[in-house]
Amino acid sequence: MATDKLSQWLKGEGFIKSPASDNTSPASTQPPQTQPIIHSSTQPPIPQKTEKVLPPRRDNQNRPYAPQRSGAPRTGFKSSRNDYNPTIGRPTLAKKEKFHPTNFLNSGKKGDIRVVPLGGLEQVGENMCFLEWGNDIVIIDMGILFPSPEHLGVDVLVPDISYLVQNKRKIRGVIFTHGHLDHIGGVPYLAKELGFPQMYATRLTKELILANSEESGVSSKLNIMEINPKSHIRLGQFEFEFFHINHSIPDGVGIVAKTPYGNIIHTSDFKIDYNPSDDQPADLGRISKIGAEGVILAMVDSTNALRPGHSLSETFIEDQLAKIVRDTPGRLIVTTFASNIGRIGKIVQTAEEQGRTVFLSGRSMERNLVIAKKLNYLKYKESTIQPMGRKADTMDPRKVLILSTGSQGEELAALTRMAAKTHKDVKLRPDDTVVFSSSPIPGNELAIVSVMNNLSEIGVHMIDNKQLDTHVSGHGHAEEVKLMTTLLNPKYFAPIHGELYMRHGHKEMVIKELGFARERTLIMKNGQGAVINEKGVRLMTDKEAIPASDVMIELGEKLGQHILAERTLMAEGGAIFMTVKHNVGKVQKIDIRSRGFRYMDTKHEIFTQLGSEMKNVFERNFDPSRPEKALEEALKKSAQKFFYQKFRKEPLVEIVI
Amino acid sequence: MATDKLSQWLKGEGFIKSPASDNTSPASTQPPQTQPIIHSSTQPPIPQKTEKVLPPRRDNQNRPYAPQRSGAPRTGFKSSRNDYNPTIGRPTLAKKEKFHPTNFLNSGKKGDIRVVPLGGLEQVGENMCFLEWGNDIVIIDMGILFPSPEHLGVDVLVPDISYLVQNKRKIRGVIFTHGHLDHIGGVPYLAKELGFPQMYATRLTKELILANSEESGVSSKLNIMEINPKSHIRLGQFEFEFFHINHSIPDGVGIVAKTPYGNIIHTSDFKIDYNPSDDQPADLGRISKIGAEGVILAMVDSTNALRPGHSLSETFIEDQLAKIVRDTPGRLIVTTFASNIGRIGKIVQTAEEQGRTVFLSGRSMERNLVIAKKLNYLKYKESTIQPMGRKADTMDPRKVLILSTGSQGEELAALTRMAAKTHKDVKLRPDDTVVFSSSPIPGNELAIVSVMNNLSEIGVHMIDNKQLDTHVSGHGHAEEVKLMTTLLNPKYFAPIHGELYMRHGHKEMVIKELGFARERTLIMKNGQGAVINEKGVRLMTDKEAIPASDVMIELGEKLGQHILAERTLMAEGGAIFMTVKHNVGKVQKIDIRSRGFRYMDTKHEIFTQLGSEMKNVFERNFDPSRPEKALEEALKKSAQKFFYQKFRKEPLVEIVI
Repeated sequence: MATDKLSQWLKGEGFIKSPASDNTSPASTQPPQTQPIIHSSTQPPIPQKTEKVLPPRRDNQNRPYAPQRSGAPRTGFKSSRNDYNPTIGRPTLAKKEKFHPTNFLNSGKKGDIRVVPLGGLEQVGENMCFLEWGNDIVIIDMGILFPSPEHLGVDVLVPDISYLVQNKRKIRGVIFTHGHLDHIGGVPYLAKELGFPQMYATRLTKELILANSEESGVSSKLNIMEINPKSHIRLGQFEFEFFHINHSIPDGVGIVAKTPYGNIIHTSDFKIDYNPSDDQPADLGRISKIGAEGVILAMVDSTNALRPGHSLSETFIEDQLAKIVRDTPGRLIVTTFASNIGRIGKIVQTAEEQGRTVFLSGRSMERNLVIAKKLNYLKYKESTIQPMGRKADTMDPRKVLILSTGSQGEELAALTRMAAKTHKDVKLRPDDTVVFSSSPIPGNELAIVSVMNNLSEIGVHMIDNKQLDTHVSGHGHAEEVKLMTTLLNPKYFAPIHGELYMRHGHKEMVIKELGFARERTLIMKNGQGAVINEKGVRLMTDKEAIPASDVMIELGEKLGQHILAERTLMAEGGAIFMTVKHNVGKVQKIDIRSRGFRYMDTKHEIFTQLGSEMKNVFERNFDPSRPEKALEEALKKSAQKFFYQKFRKEPLVEIVI
Repeated sequence: MATDKLSQWLKGEGFIKSPASDNTSPASTQPPQTQPIIHSSTQPPIPQKTEKVLPPRRDNQNRPYAPQRSGAPRTGFKSSRNDYNPTIGRPTLAKKEKFHPTNFLNSGKKGDIRVVPLGGLEQVGENMCFLEWGNDIVIIDMGILFPSPEHLGVDVLVPDISYLVQNKRKIRGVIFTHGHLDHIGGVPYLAKELGFPQMYATRLTKELILANSEESGVSSKLNIMEINPKSHIRLGQFEFEFFHINHSIPDGVGIVAKTPYGNIIHTSDFKIDYNPSDDQPADLGRISKIGAEGVILAMVDSTNALRPGHSLSETFIEDQLAKIVRDTPGRLIVTTFASNIGRIGKIVQTAEEQGRTVFLSGRSMERNLVIAKKLNYLKYKESTIQPMGRKADTMDPRKVLILSTGSQGEELAALTRMAAKTHKDVKLRPDDTVVFSSSPIPGNELAIVSVMNNLSEIGVHMIDNKQLDTHVSGHGHAEEVKLMTTLLNPKYFAPIHGELYMRHGHKEMVIKELGFARERTLIMKNGQGAVINEKGVRLMTDKEAIPASDVMIELGEKLGQHILAERTLMAEGGAIFMTVKHNVGKVQKIDIRSRGFRYMDTKHEIFTQLGSEMKNVFERNFDPSRPEKALEEALKKSAQKFFYQKFRKEPLVEIVI
């Protein structure tokens, strides 16, 4: 049925009716809603009012917002789903209080609200932003970015949080949208500097944050409160609600910040999957209700906004994978992202049905499987899963499935080592089948090709679902992001996530295809977000911008930009190291060492020339009354000039007198 | 009509009949065939015989080869083409002699023939191989490879030609298949070492080799003889013929080496385009005739062999481009590969029709346009083309088309600089349209995205034919390479070009889909090709292999592997320079300099520890009777161990006593 709906979509024939206006929606058969949490940090609980007595929300011209739709069921139209696991998403810390939104406009609290991205807008990854309102700051996500080749020696990049560190006392909490590393991976590097603020995350996201922070010793210091899509939390003046979305990891939420100017929405990464294997479909009814309440600003994922149509359901690819597991006669090696719990679940389940033992390789794979089982995303017999070992090589190959990281050609991943014939336990054989179930992250193409080359040399059968994988991305295509924006019906629109050109394209699409006014769209930058007040929403000025460059981390510590600059110089041209021995300004000897420079032999005439040049400069500039450092600098400069004139390129030069 | 044929292909409904058996082929309306060349280097002309008196060619079991088809027309079925330019491909050095193949089996000349790739098999680029038979070596192509990020500071890579240099006296000539840099770019770096051997290339390829070698001063020393697809040349014992193929550059040829064991075929890069805009369709009739003569080994392009179906005709994308040029109201900036002469021609022609001036940017673009005009590939009024300048910014935008290099995000290309707002003449504006007409070369994705981000910030309209471009690749898809192998009907098959996994996939395809015997397929390696003799074809053994690693070139000279190793160390961890001052073994002072290392401040405690460690090692190992170098080495080793123990990562260390 989902398939039919989808094919309608793909043909552009159908448009899902909003459940808010869908009288046939079987909302009454839904399981009872879990109680919302009220969590209040620094502020006393808000006096309870019933919704009916509140005057309708109004915009800044004192007109009512988008028409209020009444009676809209809060949850989606998939209530008859039998495999729904009611334990997923149920809060462990649920409190008894009932939550009622407060109309801040009437309560007199006003002032500028700022939404400031710190990462994720000028790179794909490193997602982090914060909302600031008077004395309250709430952070959304703390992600990392993996380095590009030009980040020589760098392990990971994180956003610049200097503004937040300066304003640490204002931080009321950190909310996480989902458990991918580009949203939670920054916690081990940043949480301490921020004074370990209170954190909020759904069950799975919480477990992943804890597991990911374990190695750095930070996890025991984290205080993470569990939320679910029905939670309400109050952090300072802010109130937050959530809505369930789909992504390539379960238990993701979009964020609603309730303000006197209307709701501020952060969709985070999302797709709309009518038939996700590991989760409920995105809660379109709830999203539409949030839209009806009045949205002042919607920040919407742009990663796949320029891809036409609708992404395919995860179920599509999982069915394919299950078929491969069933139909492959010999040993199977499958690689996918460790965070794709639905896909991993399907593989494990099919393997178990077929009597295959699943050997796990890769720490993240092992860790996530334990978590997924604990949270009831997966069910399997203990005996089905085994850690990687010799047995994976010696058992009947028809009974073996190796589930490995390394889908991106990572140097140390098991698959990379198996392909290079350097894995200590497993030797691949021509009758093995290797399945790549993930699309390449831009920049990893060459590494993946290198693994594939090695595999082809062994002669294994390779299955690469590249085409299909691309269409089952975790990020919604054009029709999904348009649906989201249509349901949210915001006054202002800011495309987030994805490359800048995708965000610009998304903006143009919203203008052309949804009839949005250009002046109500905003292209934010890292450090330069939006200001929301009674006048509307505007971009922060250049003057208002805060620092937001990438911070490089090497071995757990920050690495300065000047260090990278020196590495780049040495990487491109090597280094020349000179020691000048002199007697009161008369050069006795210059010792030259060449490392990584194009001429290694210091007998080369270039070094004779350099030596005499240095001697001249030294003797001309020697002045016993000045510090040696100054002379060293003068020598360095002339040496660099010397090389540049010869080669239009210079090595790093270091000189000791 | 071409479209209809193509759509039949795509639907798998049709299969082009071999013109050899196609009685309706209007071969008689063909223009008269140009006279073949006979060129003989070191060997006297072969005595002329008529074909009829020759006994039929036989294989090594003395059975006749694939059935001889008689009366097959030599040229393809596109004789009614009105825009055929008879000057293209006509040899300037045509001689009067007629050529008749000689049956070497009968003439008693035998022995091993080796086909040895030197590049292009373990990388995409750097294409070069040679044939060796007794005292004769003939080289095919001399290509370059552009460096990957790990090739720190390297400008370009070329094949290792040490074996050829050692056997220079055997070299009878170099044949070029087409004018792309990965086939001709090595000439400036390699020709001199090989003693400037006689070269053979088609008209366009010859001009491109000369133009590309000009800067290095080599071009005046080159001796390039022009060939065309009908040429016959004799080089030592070898005889060569050619066949016309299509590619993303015109005037490409496949190579036939005629030997007593049958024809050895090198297809080079090819596609089969029934309607190329700048050239004739691939000569299927001729290819089929070559197959009928008996092919012992076919080496076939694998780059796109794993892509299903048939590539689209170049005409498709050119029609799209012409439409864009016609329909765009404002200024147009188009970027494509400078070597895609057909596409460039279409853009220039449409611009001229629309009254637009074409401003050229990029040296290769300017150079190739001059060549293409000289060789009659292009016709335009002198006034249509202008070099890039301020005028491109000040003229009526509707009358401007900028044709620029930079489709791969190259740092110095005009488009990159325009996007970054650093171009001296042109400031892009929101009403400009930028067209990317090329697919990304793997590894360039991030650079291209960065240009697109910058363009989107300016707000220009971007058109990116990525999808279409991929299908109009210059390399034949599965059905094309299968057609080629079917027509050639070889006894042995060796997939060449493309990544290793593509070559393995191509091999499996030939086995499964063409019914080829597995033992008659060969996966060659660089330096380890095939040996052909009366027993058949076999791979060279490990012992027979010759050196064939990449050779790195920096500023025109070779760069040693050890230099790259040192650069890598410094790139990842920086460098520490120490100077030890001592008095007969008693350390007086250790001066430490830290460059690009994670701690730059030498007051950091790590350096205090390092200093005392060095002092200990020095005083323990000091021995005035031993050279200082030995002590320096000992100190370096301990320092590196010191860093490794602390960080599992070490900087480069240099020590002077």
